[in-house]
Amino acid sequence: MTLARLSLNQWTTRRWSLREAVDGCVRHGVAAIGLWREHVAEHGLAAAAKLVTDAGLRVSSLCRGGFLTGPGLGLKDNRAAIDEAAALNAACLVLVVGGLPGVAPGGAPGPGFSRDLPGARARVAEALALLAPYAAERGVRLALEPLHPVYCADRAVLSTLGQALDLAEHFPAEQVGVVVDTFHVWWDPEVLTQIARAAGRIASYQVSDFLVPLPADPLLGRGMMGDGVIDFGPLTAAVDAADYHGDIEVEIFNADVWAADPDEVLATMKRRFAAAAR
Amino acid sequence: MTLARLSLNQWTTRRWSLREAVDGCVRHGVAAIGLWREHVAEHGLAAAAKLVTDAGLRVSSLCRGGFLTGPGLGLKDNRAAIDEAAALNAACLVLVVGGLPGVAPGGAPGPGFSRDLPGARARVAEALALLAPYAAERGVRLALEPLHPVYCADRAVLSTLGQALDLAEHFPAEQVGVVVDTFHVWWDPEVLTQIARAAGRIASYQVSDFLVPLPADPLLGRGMMGDGVIDFGPLTAAVDAADYHGDIEVEIFNADVWAADPDEVLATMKRRFAAAAR
Repeated sequence: MTLARLSLNQWTTRRWSLREAVDGCVRHGVAAIGLWREHVAEHGLAAAAKLVTDAGLRVSSLCRGGFLTGPGLGLKDNRAAIDEAAALNAACLVLVVGGLPGVAPGGAPGPGFSRDLPGARARVAEALALLAPYAAERGVRLALEPLHPVYCADRAVLSTLGQALDLAEHFPAEQVGVVVDTFHVWWDPEVLTQIARAAGRIASYQVSDFLVPLPADPLLGRGMMGDGVIDFGPLTAAVDAADYHGDIEVEIFNADVWAADPDEVLATMKRRFAAAAR
Repeated sequence: MTLARLSLNQWTTRRWSLREAVDGCVRHGVAAIGLWREHVAEHGLAAAAKLVTDAGLRVSSLCRGGFLTGPGLGLKDNRAAIDEAAALNAACLVLVVGGLPGVAPGGAPGPGFSRDLPGARARVAEALALLAPYAAERGVRLALEPLHPVYCADRAVLSTLGQALDLAEHFPAEQVGVVVDTFHVWWDPEVLTQIARAAGRIASYQVSDFLVPLPADPLLGRGMMGDGVIDFGPLTAAVDAADYHGDIEVEIFNADVWAADPDEVLATMKRRFAAAAR
């Protein structure tokens, strides 16, 4: 993978403030950044947009909207996220669609819990139909992210790329795209077929490795490319063949990575990124 | 779900010896048992067959063969498992096909590790072509079990029911069937379609719930029906509609269940089983 397309997803160095992350990208010659709303809010939206623009960085994504399966479909918060993505000139707004109603991320079933998985999936479609026009008016591309099935109950009832495409195809490709995240899709027997089907609709390509065994909190089971079991070459080749030539984000949720010196993390990230697709 | 079809998968009460498990089934009016090779070996194969027959129990499955992705394709051990299934008159031999080469169940990548997932899947097909005739000659039905994608690297590169059917369909349905295990397939957006497609080819239906959050070892994330997030009704109805009228095994890997008094486990199992499909 060519370093010119490398983007630092901000959660990889989550203890850095927005300013520190932007400075880090500039210092390490990383030309793009995937922003998180929490960090942007802390810095202030307008100031964040200026900071990133002045540094000459591309914004490969804004993370994240979604959580559409609860009461109210999360419409208010997602409209705000769309406005932020527009202000930041982000290439897309990533949507993590949410799990079963009444299950908080990482939590146990609570008030409002429902086992109705098809119902939760229908709510996502319903919310998307309401949000896509709002996003389109503001020039924001929504990016549906299928998550590994281990997160189906608590984070995303969208579990495969095929399922994401079934939803996205109701809308023009420039309005609703999909995220291909290696950690989430590597196991899928259909992944190469579905990446090909996604041609023109890939809004974001994210890379991180799948660690084996997973740590106690499966959310933190991502590693640097090469530390896990994923064969990146065929996936990256398929994404290339599907006409995605945008930035490639490295997004790593990992306690050791978060504890390390972020400058070392960026150096490792660059080295592993360059080696991953060989 | 009707109690007449309830089968105790032996791993649910794994600290019981074979004799204790058989006695437990009889005491609680459970008419079928899913045997594990470890327990059978401990008791002796011929004696185990006699014990179960004398008790009037049906053997709903023998667990398990598989682990076909390493060198030698596991052929020798699987032929032995087939012989055992024949001796026990088991309705099927469950195959957990194995993960990536060089990754032990629950372990980290070790000697012989390969990231070649399509290659590992091809080995499963190759092994199956060699084992199916051997099993057919002995009247043993092989049952391919897709496992939850969280186990793709270390236990089964067979991750969806659709993928299992793609493999099974090269053989007559009475030779190679599939296992539908609610824990493994509940999240799959295609699950109802694929269960319908599996008509005539379902060799085993296993039920347990998916706990949220998962415990530190995801292998132990199974719970009694009702303790997790699975809506059993639609799955059981689909399995019924697909003409599976055999035994329904309760197979639970769970530290608390294993620590409890097995007689209480059986009482709870019967109660929850009866309630699960309402």
